[in-house]
Amino acid sequence: MIEDILQKKAKLVDEAIPKFLPITPPEELYRAMRHLLDGGGKRLRPSALLLAAEAVGGKPETVLPAAVAVELVHNFTLIHDDIMDEADLRRGLTTVHKKWGVPRAIIAGDAMYSKAFEILSCTKSDPQRLVESLELLSKTCTDICEGQWMDMNFATRKDVTEDEYMRMVEKKTAVLFAAALKMGASLSGSNNDNARALWDFGRFTGIGFQIYDDVIDLITPEEILGKAQGGDIVEGKRTLIIIDALSKGVSIDALGKSNATRSEINAALTTLKESGSIDYAMNKAISFVDQGKAALSVLPDSEAKLTLTRLADYMIERKY
Amino acid sequence: MIEDILQKKAKLVDEAIPKFLPITPPEELYRAMRHLLDGGGKRLRPSALLLAAEAVGGKPETVLPAAVAVELVHNFTLIHDDIMDEADLRRGLTTVHKKWGVPRAIIAGDAMYSKAFEILSCTKSDPQRLVESLELLSKTCTDICEGQWMDMNFATRKDVTEDEYMRMVEKKTAVLFAAALKMGASLSGSNNDNARALWDFGRFTGIGFQIYDDVIDLITPEEILGKAQGGDIVEGKRTLIIIDALSKGVSIDALGKSNATRSEINAALTTLKESGSIDYAMNKAISFVDQGKAALSVLPDSEAKLTLTRLADYMIERKY
Repeated sequence: MIEDILQKKAKLVDEAIPKFLPITPPEELYRAMRHLLDGGGKRLRPSALLLAAEAVGGKPETVLPAAVAVELVHNFTLIHDDIMDEADLRRGLTTVHKKWGVPRAIIAGDAMYSKAFEILSCTKSDPQRLVESLELLSKTCTDICEGQWMDMNFATRKDVTEDEYMRMVEKKTAVLFAAALKMGASLSGSNNDNARALWDFGRFTGIGFQIYDDVIDLITPEEILGKAQGGDIVEGKRTLIIIDALSKGVSIDALGKSNATRSEINAALTTLKESGSIDYAMNKAISFVDQGKAALSVLPDSEAKLTLTRLADYMIERKY
Repeated sequence: MIEDILQKKAKLVDEAIPKFLPITPPEELYRAMRHLLDGGGKRLRPSALLLAAEAVGGKPETVLPAAVAVELVHNFTLIHDDIMDEADLRRGLTTVHKKWGVPRAIIAGDAMYSKAFEILSCTKSDPQRLVESLELLSKTCTDICEGQWMDMNFATRKDVTEDEYMRMVEKKTAVLFAAALKMGASLSGSNNDNARALWDFGRFTGIGFQIYDDVIDLITPEEILGKAQGGDIVEGKRTLIIIDALSKGVSIDALGKSNATRSEINAALTTLKESGSIDYAMNKAISFVDQGKAALSVLPDSEAKLTLTRLADYMIERKY
C-alpha cells in the first residue's frame, strides 16, 4: 500500500525535524516555528525528495537535511499565507498568528525560511551540487512569492484566464515539488537526464496536486478537511473550477462573499457540480498527473520509481 | 574624506541593484521590493563587504553579488520590521506595507530574502567557500530573527538587563555586519585569521553602531532623521539608554506611551540627558568601535584597512 510506504517516509522526516530544528533560546520562537510542523502533515514534498534520491541509487539518510529543508519552506509559506488569508485554522490547529499574534508569526516564518537554507547547507554532498541546490531552493522560494502575489491579484479580478491560473499554480505550488525531486536526485549524484525527469515529474504532478487541492476544498466536509468546506468560494479565490464556471457564464452568488451563509455556500457547490466545472478540474488534475508519470520513463526501473508512480496517483486520490 | 570613499562604494552597490534585481513580472511585486532600496541609504553593510575583499587582496567587482545580497537582507528586515512596528515612514519614504498593504509587504520581504540567497549563489568563487557563505548568511538571518524576537519581548518587560540587551543587539544588528565582512574576505580567498579578524571588526563595530543608532533616535531632529525624534521612547523600546536610566531608578513618563505629546517626549529627552544615560550609551558605543578597530591589527596594512578604520569612526559620528 502506498499509504504505508508514505507513512514510513513521513516517519523519517518526523524524526529528523526535532533533530535539525530543536527548541533552543528564545524557546517561544522555536515553539512557534514547530507549531504546525509538530501537528503532522503528509510530508509529501520531503517524501518525494527521499524517493527521488533512491530512484537514482542514492541513500535517503544522506539527503535527509534537504528533505527537512523542503518541509520547512512549505511550512514557512503556510505561516505567512495564514496571516495574509486571516485564517484561524490550519489542519485543525490554531494558526501561528492566531496563537502568537501577527508580528511574531512573521518572525517565526522568516526564521523557518533561514533555517531551511541553514539545514540544506549541511547536506553532505559535492560542494558544487550543494551550491546548485541552494540556488535552486532560493529560486523556488522567489517563484512561490511570485505565485502568491499573482494569486492575491486574481482575487480582485473577474477575467483571470486558465493560462494565468496555470502559471500561478506552477510557481506557487508545483516548483517546490519539482525542486524537491531534483534536489533529491542531484545531491545523490544523479546525471542530468534523470534529475531533469524527476523535475518534470514534480512539476506536472505538483500542478495536478494543486488543481485537485482546490477540488478537495469543495467536496470534503469540514471534519475531514480541518477547515470550512468551500472556504475558497467565500474567499473569492480564482481556482480552476471557478475560472471554468465564470468562463461558461455560470453565476456564483457566494463568490467572495465573506459573510455567506452555509446554505448559500451549499448552493454554490451544487452549481459548480452541475456546471461540470468540478469534473473539468478533476480531469485536468488527472491529465497532469499522467504527464508526470510519463516523464519517469527515462529512469531505470526500481522500487522507488514504482512508489513515485503510486505517489502521483495518491496525490489526486487523497481526501484532505 | 571617508564620506567620499563610502559614496564611491555606495555607487557601485546602487548600480548593481537594478542589474541583480530588475523589475520583471509580476512588476508590482518587484517595485515593492525595490521601493526602499531605490530610496538610497548609506549601504554601510555592502560597502564594508567590498572593503573587506580589498583588505585581503581581492577585487570588489568579484564579490559585488554578495554585497547586493547583504543589502537585500538588510532591506528585507526593514520591510518586515516596519509591519511589526506599524511604522508609516522609513528614511522619509512611505513604508512598503503603508503603500501596498500588509499581505503584499510580507510577500515583498519574503521575496527579497530568497533573492538575496539567489544572488549570493551567483558569486564566482570556490564552491566550498560559496557553500560556507550561503550557510553563514542563513545562520545570520536566523540570528536576526532571534534578535528581533528578543527585542519584541523586551518591550513588555521592565527588568531587561544590559547583558540581555547586548545579546539582542549582537543578533539583531551586529552579526549582519560581521557576516558581510567575513563573506567579503572568504569569497576573496582570505586565510582564516584575516577572515576572523574582519568578522570581529564587524561584530564589535556593529554593536557600537546599534547603540549609537539608539542615541541618534534621541538626539536627531525629525527633518534629518526621516522619522519622529524620540520614537523609540513612545514605542517603549528597551535601548541601552533606557535600560541604564531604569537601572538608576530614573522615571520616564512617556516610555511606551503611544499617545505621548511632543512636550512629554521632550521632557523624557531632557531626563535621559540629565541622568547621564545618553552619555553612558555614547561611551559604550565608542568603546565597542575601539575594540573593532583593534581587531584589524592582524591584517596587512592597506588603503582598504585604513578606510575600514575610518568607517568604524564614521559609524558613531553619522547624524542619521
